[in-house]
Amino acid sequence: MSLSSILIKDIDWILTQNSRRQILKNYSVYVEENLITEIGNPRVEADFTIDGKGKVLLPGLINCHTHSSMTLLRGYADDMKLHEWLETRIWPLESKLKPEYCYIGTLLACLEMIRFGVTCFNDMYIFVDDIAKAVKESGLRCFLGEVIFDWNLKNKFSYFEKFTKKWLRDDLVTPVVNPHAPYSCSDETLFKLKEISDRYNLLTHMHVSETEKEVKDFQKNKNKTPVEHLDELGILNDRFIGVHCNWLSSKDVEILSRRNSSIVHCPTSCMKLASGRVPPLKNIFEKNIRVGLGTDGCASNNNLDLFEEMKNCSLINKFQERDPTFIPAQKTLDLVTIEPAKILSIDDRIGTIGEGKIADLILVDFKKPHLQPIHTKHTIISNLVYSCKGQDVDTTIVDGKILMKHGKVLTLNEHEVMNQTQSIIQELMNS
Amino acid sequence: MSLSSILIKDIDWILTQNSRRQILKNYSVYVEENLITEIGNPRVEADFTIDGKGKVLLPGLINCHTHSSMTLLRGYADDMKLHEWLETRIWPLESKLKPEYCYIGTLLACLEMIRFGVTCFNDMYIFVDDIAKAVKESGLRCFLGEVIFDWNLKNKFSYFEKFTKKWLRDDLVTPVVNPHAPYSCSDETLFKLKEISDRYNLLTHMHVSETEKEVKDFQKNKNKTPVEHLDELGILNDRFIGVHCNWLSSKDVEILSRRNSSIVHCPTSCMKLASGRVPPLKNIFEKNIRVGLGTDGCASNNNLDLFEEMKNCSLINKFQERDPTFIPAQKTLDLVTIEPAKILSIDDRIGTIGEGKIADLILVDFKKPHLQPIHTKHTIISNLVYSCKGQDVDTTIVDGKILMKHGKVLTLNEHEVMNQTQSIIQELMNS
Repeated sequence: MSLSSILIKDIDWILTQNSRRQILKNYSVYVEENLITEIGNPRVEADFTIDGKGKVLLPGLINCHTHSSMTLLRGYADDMKLHEWLETRIWPLESKLKPEYCYIGTLLACLEMIRFGVTCFNDMYIFVDDIAKAVKESGLRCFLGEVIFDWNLKNKFSYFEKFTKKWLRDDLVTPVVNPHAPYSCSDETLFKLKEISDRYNLLTHMHVSETEKEVKDFQKNKNKTPVEHLDELGILNDRFIGVHCNWLSSKDVEILSRRNSSIVHCPTSCMKLASGRVPPLKNIFEKNIRVGLGTDGCASNNNLDLFEEMKNCSLINKFQERDPTFIPAQKTLDLVTIEPAKILSIDDRIGTIGEGKIADLILVDFKKPHLQPIHTKHTIISNLVYSCKGQDVDTTIVDGKILMKHGKVLTLNEHEVMNQTQSIIQELMNS
Repeated sequence: MSLSSILIKDIDWILTQNSRRQILKNYSVYVEENLITEIGNPRVEADFTIDGKGKVLLPGLINCHTHSSMTLLRGYADDMKLHEWLETRIWPLESKLKPEYCYIGTLLACLEMIRFGVTCFNDMYIFVDDIAKAVKESGLRCFLGEVIFDWNLKNKFSYFEKFTKKWLRDDLVTPVVNPHAPYSCSDETLFKLKEISDRYNLLTHMHVSETEKEVKDFQKNKNKTPVEHLDELGILNDRFIGVHCNWLSSKDVEILSRRNSSIVHCPTSCMKLASGRVPPLKNIFEKNIRVGLGTDGCASNNNLDLFEEMKNCSLINKFQERDPTFIPAQKTLDLVTIEPAKILSIDDRIGTIGEGKIADLILVDFKKPHLQPIHTKHTIISNLVYSCKGQDVDTTIVDGKILMKHGKVLTLNEHEVMNQTQSIIQELMNS
């Protein structure tokens, strides 16, 4: 046997997230190369053995929307109005960014994600070739593309196409077309990106209808909503992912459903930026639209913790709907595992735990006061969604490779990355 | 020198939370017996030395409203309508509680609080003499009283008065009068409790105007709001603490301000139970009413993490007010440190860091990816409020005693408490 193998032994609970949402008690899992080959009590030796006692195994979490390099700007500017925030703080600092800064910023983000049990993320930023390099070093799975605005188009298309060709067949980094938003991309820009998306069969990932102002301006200037506009241009299809979508109309939901497009909800950034509304999820769920959760970037959240995002999703939507039964814990867990796997068209391989699936797995340590007691197996789901945080993740495995074992990150040098980050910040602040 | 002493050496940052909100860089702190006696660079030996490098020192956090024993019910029932939740799940289980269950449940809660940097909490439940015993073992500071409902008055007044006499001069446990709510306590009950509160100079801590139904029923039956009712009865004074207060009218706010009473906001439970509104904090702050945060009990939150509560307070209030500048990070931090110390009338001793103050202190480990980078000292506050969670607390000190050092709890046996809890739960579920 020349393959590398992992045996996760005596796991208290396994949340399979399969179609029956099966929860298994006291099983072991055997991983060969990058696949789960046995769930049971395999009496085998493995290259690596991990103790699952007192722990819960679940599919690695999927963050459907972030800007990983913006981790550099975490806490740099908060509690400001969107426009002032962008114009006086974010854009001036971003204008000084260099490829190596984005590389280091992404390493820092990857460290946080490995620690917090995020095994796959969908990213939009600049200098994406350098970002991809950092992601590869970390061992995480990533969907990634250069963000495209009209005001900064120079060489962007050729840069992105070169990036696409380079990474198209990579097993962990998948190129994605990333127009910034309907208000920042002309029809011509959108057509060009659509052409690239079609040519390489790429997902398209775009901010849509985040603020009331955006939608009102669109209606005033074009007499239609941003979603209606995108639909008229032929941009919407089953590979389209609309992010935020706080201000969708019923007709918008109808259109997105008809086009089989997906929606990403970012509850924390939506609340922090005071967007005023969350997406109309009751309607969206009724129309069977795929929904995932995103943390957004660290300049507007300020972390990459999908456990926090799950709880916040459940809280704000219960509050908004005045219905405590809305989005129960199991549904919330679906929004960071199997649902986003469907959005990214990889649900045949990840997002659930089963024999033959890819081993993107996390172990959460439940032997902690705030994750006790356990009444029944349903308490496991409740404690994960309503009490757990990223810090409780014990072990993170992506594509059959152990990225963190019992709280120790194995792929990156944590202290070196933090020191490099602090040096960059000094440079940035003094430049 | 016969006193016990602690030297916290080379602390990266100290958030004093004093009246100037001073932030100190690279200082050490010397604690003798239960007092902070020097902040500077004391060249002294101490009985205990704690390394402050890479860490942030701040006043221990104060949880203004919880039901610690309900930690036993964490995750037992979620995503239900309030009435169904109480009648079919919570009350049936609570009716089976025994004093020793509440004792163990409180130990579990105390473990979580010590881990999460909560040094003082304001608690309302049953069997409070057993709860006090658990709190004393843990070393935490607690304000505590037996909850009083009309439907379960038998022996309650005498039990509570005996409890009060026993604990009145304790240095860590302070008795509090705890009528459940205006709708569950008759005028007669409230008068009796007022008499006890006045006789022993105790705080009064009570749920008020949590739901729309509560306020509507009051207006229908008595033609006044719950706050107007309490005011007419003479219950409101500067020792009165109203919890939840989601549905206060402008006149209610005016009354609470005039009576110099305090308010506790529980953002997470307010959202999870879909109360539909948060307290009108803009108006409340304008009227200079003291405000603290509470987690509520673990049956409705489901943890005791005040870091999460800070973030949720900021998020839901920005969202509700559609104003991202509302409740900035520094203000949020005040709501779990100096403001609640004022509510509990102990701000001359705790809630800030200064020479002569009582040593209720926590150290947060900032050498973690999600708490980096640091641009300026303001990033410290932002990272504490918007990225940090209870799990990042490294060391907890109460009344000059180290309860947790570098992640190891010293006063309680963690595994024993978790095992005892699980045994109780088996008993409860099978009874």
